[in-house]
Order: sequence, then C-alpha cells, then structure tokens
Amino acid sequence: MSGEPTATRGPALIIGTGLIGTSIALALRGRGVEVWLQDLSPTSLALALDMGAGTLPGSESPALVIVAAPPDVAGGLAAEALQTFPDAVVTDVASVKDAVVQDVQDLAPDRASLGRFVGSHPMAGRARSGASSAHADLFYGRAWVVVPTEWSEPEARLVVRNLANDLGAVTLSLSPEEHDQAVAAISHVPQLISSLLAGSLVDASPEALMLAGQGLRDTTRIAASDPDLWTRIVAGNAKPVARVLQTILEPLQDLTDRLGDPGTTPGMPLAPGATAAISKIIGRGNRGVSRIPGKHGASPKRWATLEVLIPDRPGQLGRLFSDLGEAGVNIEDLSLDHSAGQPVGLARIQVAPGVAESAARELGMRGWRVADGGRK
Amino acid sequence: MSGEPTATRGPALIIGTGLIGTSIALALRGRGVEVWLQDLSPTSLALALDMGAGTLPGSESPALVIVAAPPDVAGGLAAEALQTFPDAVVTDVASVKDAVVQDVQDLAPDRASLGRFVGSHPMAGRARSGASSAHADLFYGRAWVVVPTEWSEPEARLVVRNLANDLGAVTLSLSPEEHDQAVAAISHVPQLISSLLAGSLVDASPEALMLAGQGLRDTTRIAASDPDLWTRIVAGNAKPVARVLQTILEPLQDLTDRLGDPGTTPGMPLAPGATAAISKIIGRGNRGVSRIPGKHGASPKRWATLEVLIPDRPGQLGRLFSDLGEAGVNIEDLSLDHSAGQPVGLARIQVAPGVAESAARELGMRGWRVADGGRK
Repeated sequence: MSGEPTATRGPALIIGTGLIGTSIALALRGRGVEVWLQDLSPTSLALALDMGAGTLPGSESPALVIVAAPPDVAGGLAAEALQTFPDAVVTDVASVKDAVVQDVQDLAPDRASLGRFVGSHPMAGRARSGASSAHADLFYGRAWVVVPTEWSEPEARLVVRNLANDLGAVTLSLSPEEHDQAVAAISHVPQLISSLLAGSLVDASPEALMLAGQGLRDTTRIAASDPDLWTRIVAGNAKPVARVLQTILEPLQDLTDRLGDPGTTPGMPLAPGATAAISKIIGRGNRGVSRIPGKHGASPKRWATLEVLIPDRPGQLGRLFSDLGEAGVNIEDLSLDHSAGQPVGLARIQVAPGVAESAARELGMRGWRVADGGRK
Repeated sequence: MSGEPTATRGPALIIGTGLIGTSIALALRGRGVEVWLQDLSPTSLALALDMGAGTLPGSESPALVIVAAPPDVAGGLAAEALQTFPDAVVTDVASVKDAVVQDVQDLAPDRASLGRFVGSHPMAGRARSGASSAHADLFYGRAWVVVPTEWSEPEARLVVRNLANDLGAVTLSLSPEEHDQAVAAISHVPQLISSLLAGSLVDASPEALMLAGQGLRDTTRIAASDPDLWTRIVAGNAKPVARVLQTILEPLQDLTDRLGDPGTTPGMPLAPGATAAISKIIGRGNRGVSRIPGKHGASPKRWATLEVLIPDRPGQLGRLFSDLGEAGVNIEDLSLDHSAGQPVGLARIQVAPGVAESAARELGMRGWRVADGGRK
C-alpha cells in the first residue's frame, strides 16, 4: 500500500478522535499527510496525540475536514466547518446519512457552501471503541460508501473518494436514502435482532446455557456491542429501521400466536396453519441468506468443507495448518467450533472442491480425524 | 478414544438411518458392537448398509434399540420397540423430548415396559442431513442430554449414559420439561430468529447486500438450515418456543412502534421513549450474551485478540500459523472476516493475554500487519 501514490492533500483536520477518527489520522500520517486533531474530550485528544496520530491545529486553513463524531452531532459540526473554513472540503463518517445531510443543509452558512460537503461511511468497526483501539489498517480492504448530496461539487466528491482509496478502502456511491435503507437492512436491524435474541437468554437456565452451541454463539456475537453508540445510530435511522423491523414483526407475531394456540383437532397438538407458518419462515430465511455474497462476491456455496477434530493441546492448530501447507492445500475460509467444557474443537476448513478429497486423505495420513463436511 | 473400554453391549438396533442414526451406527461398529439397521426408506437403508454402518436385523432380540427418527414419529416407534423386544432398553435421539415421552407413555404396551425407556438428545448436527453426511466422530466432545422419565429404571439410564460416553459425548441429565425449555432458548428460537432476519433480506437491494459484513454473516449463518426438519422440531416444541418468542416479540413490537412514530417535540425527531427502548434492548443483549459460556466454560472475555490482515494469496494463512508456531504462540480461538470483493481478510486470533504483546511484535517482525484487537 505504501508504494501507491497518495492523492489526499493536507492539512486534514479530524474532528473527533474516537476509533474511526484516530484510525483515519494514523493512516493519513503514515502516508505523509499533515493531520490536525480536535476533540471535545481533552483525554481522548491527548491519547490520540500521544499515539502520534497528528498535532494540534495550525493557524492556516485545512484543505480537508473529516468529522468523525456520532450521527446526532456530525451534521452540526460539518456545517460549522463549512462556515469556519470556506475553502475546505468537508466530509463526515457517521453511520447514518440522511439525518446528517438534513442537519448540514439546515445549518450550513449558505447554499454555495453545500458544494463542498460530501458525506461518507467507512464500513469498518471493531469490538472496542475509542482511540486506543485505532489502527492505520482499519479501512484496508473494506467498503467505504461515498454519499454526495444534490449540491456536492465533482471536485469535492473526488477528494472524498481519494481519501477512501488512499486508506485502502473500496468505494461505492449511494444517495443518503439508499445508504440508510441499506445499512438498516444489513447492519442496524441485524444488531437489534441479535440483541433481542441475546436478551432472551437473561432468563434462561444455567443448564440451557451449558448446551449452547456454535449457532447460538454466532447469532448473538454482535449483541456484545456498545449500547450508547448503537442507541445513537438506530435513533438516527429510525424510519428505515422501523420499516425492516415491521417485516420481521408480522411473521413473528403470527408464528407466536399460532404456536401458543392449543388447537382443537384431536390428535393434532397444533393450531391449523402453525406448521405452514414455521416452514414458511425457515424457507424464506433460506432464500434471504442465499443472497448474501460470499468471499469476493462468489456464491457462498462455492467451497468444499473439511471438518477436522482439534485436540485441545498447545500447538495443535499450528500443526494442522503446517500439515495443510505441506500438503499444498490453500485455505479459503475457516471457522472453529467449541462447546463449553469439551476436550476438542472442530475446525471447518473451506477449500476448493477439487482438492477436498486429496486434502482429507493427506490429513488422515498425518493422524487427523477428518470428515468431508459437504458444501455449505 | 479407541483405547477406552466399550460399555455398550449389542446387538444394537438403529431405527432410522439418517445423519444421527447412521453416525451412531458407524461409531458403535468402530468399537466392535454389532449393529442392525432399519429404515422406512429402502434407499436410505441401502446407503447406510453400503457405508458399512451395520447389517440387516438378525433373528435374536437386540439389547438396545435406538430410535433415530423425527420427533413426530419417534415416540410411536419407541413404544412399538418396547412391545416387540421385551428385554431391550429403548432410547430415542429426537431433539424434543416432552412430546416424545408423552407418545411413549400413551402407546407403550404397559407401565412396566416404561422402565426400559430413557429418552436422549445428542447435541450434534451438521449443515447437511442424511446418511451420506454421517461420520463416527459426530458426537465426540459434544453434549448428550439424557432424559429419564419418572418410570425409567436405573439400569436403563446407565445403558443410555454408556452409549453416549462410548461415542465420546459428555452427558447431562435433564427432565423432559427442562430439556425442552433449554433447547427452545438456545437452539429453536435462535433458529427461528435467524431465519426471520435472513428472510428480511429477500427484499433488500443488491447494493445493500454488497455492504454485508461479518455481523450479518454470523447472525444469518444458520438460516440455511433444512425447512422440513426444522418444521418438525419447532412443531414438536411449540409451547416452550412460543414462551421464549413472546419475550422477544414484546420489546420488538414496542421498539417498532416507537421508531415508526413521527414524534411531536420540535427538534426531536423521535417519539418519547424511543431512545430508551433502543438502549434497553442493546443493554439487555449485552447481559444475555455475557451468560454464554466460552471455550471450556471460561468467561468469553478471557483471551486477548490479535487482528492480522491476510492478503488473498495462496498459502498466506498457512504462513501465518507457521509463523505463530515458530514464535511459540498457542492459538485459543480464531475467526476470519471477509467482505465481498475485498482483496484481504482479517484473522482474529485469540491468545492468552500474557503473550499478546510479544506475539504481535513477533508477527510484525515477520512482515504481518497486526493490531491488538482488545479482549472480546
């Protein structure tokens, strides 16, 4: 990446030194761009400065202002920047866009200044927020949505696209409405649904939790997310989120009613239509999940899966991968299954279908317990 | 495992040669137990016989009958076996237990024969069903719930526990009601919720799906499950599932209403209580997910995470693990992130907190892009 030319011209003023702001700062500094930092919190600012993410703002005017603040304040800060720095291109990186653009339009000094504003949304996050989790590679290989308004000038759009590309991200242009509908469907609603599901475990018995398997772990992993941040995000995208939630609520209400109904037909424990309701939900889920692109946009069904039992002793995974390397097998994807209190784990290794059989044989010869897990 | 003594005595008659039945058969045969196979479908039976999972039933009486059929027929088949084989211990492996036990009690030849029946539920499954996916290690290291009834005799309970232990599983004893509530919470409801979430993607735009990240992939992975099998499972556990669904439905209904409400306070886009509703759902999700035991029952927060960028070239993962091995780092867990169309992936490697820093340094020296991902 460092061999690529850098298109972004500084000084770049970054307002907000949380995870995203500090990561952008580190990446720009790494490419030799002058970076200025600003944050309401002196502690957060001091941390970012200590990390070498930039310096305090100089007296000249920045060429680019990046507002890296929560969605409920990003629009106001961007409008203020348009006024304070009449030559700067201004962008924000909030994860909702329509509300931010509305705020910028309502609060900008004049119509002409709106030409210098282009919203954006880098699709990168981490388990932990704050400058301490920041790193320069956060955006490398990730999607970065560029969200121009009807007033955005082409040069300003180019500056924001260059910023994303300089940081290694892949850009995609969407309108504010398209963006918000998209993230409601693929990010905000999954977060809420995962949280609701995990919330139902608060009252589960300890025995039930001992039986938890990989399915439960996967479906609830993101439920560990930060409540404060997510409240701001969902509140900033309320209508699109409500529309998607409604499409889940209706079949859920129908199913719950039917399953709870004692039914009337002798010998049939369920109310009429209950089994059809279940089958329809699972079947529709099959169709929905099949629409998610796999690695590199390939069909999710493209690879063959080897399942290998991993004894819980130091170095076993390393030994497995070294054996796979010696056998010349390229790993396309992998996941590990654990169950609480169990002495072994299961590694699911995805490989090209053509090599699955020989890879399984090679591993078997090296003492691994392996099974062809089918194409999944 | 093959060095362990085998407690199970044959012949064992397995009724139903699907994934679970055939896997039990293969495992028992591998331990030298005589196995007889029976299935309504001649094709399924022929496949299991061809796989060497057992033989057609002999003329003597089996010592153990294992009913490996869907929950809506398992009870009837178990009752029939109690009548046909008056000396055999009979178990079933259906994934719901109260309905099966009721059927056995209603249909058993007499009260005394119920002493020979003990239900069970091996917590193992695969992406693909049927004998062709079966393997002898399916239960190794997994939980296997033993579900005695009030009439089950101690010797029969021991036979079923021995069966599970012979196959490498870890046993846990629960009543039918406890079992069904547990699997409703940790398996059936997560399946339905994941399917409902994935179902909402049927109407999502192609651009939205291009932005799909690891969170969406994880929350919807199990939505690819078999509709027919899951319809039988959920229908067989309707009341406990409905009770858990109700605890999700109420806050979802409340949230959807509040997010869709235009609100009345000037400058505040949301209805009163909407932000509190979001925050409560995310916060409760935090509490629920923290109750899921991690690997070996340890707290999920026990490990430090290294995040390493993986260029998409053959052999890179193998090289990473070989470098980790040379650095003496033991991998506790790992996962891979991909985004569609991206040239790199991110490996999240969990290690003991004490070695995270030196491991990151070692990897950095070997040319890897690595960041301390925090304890997650």
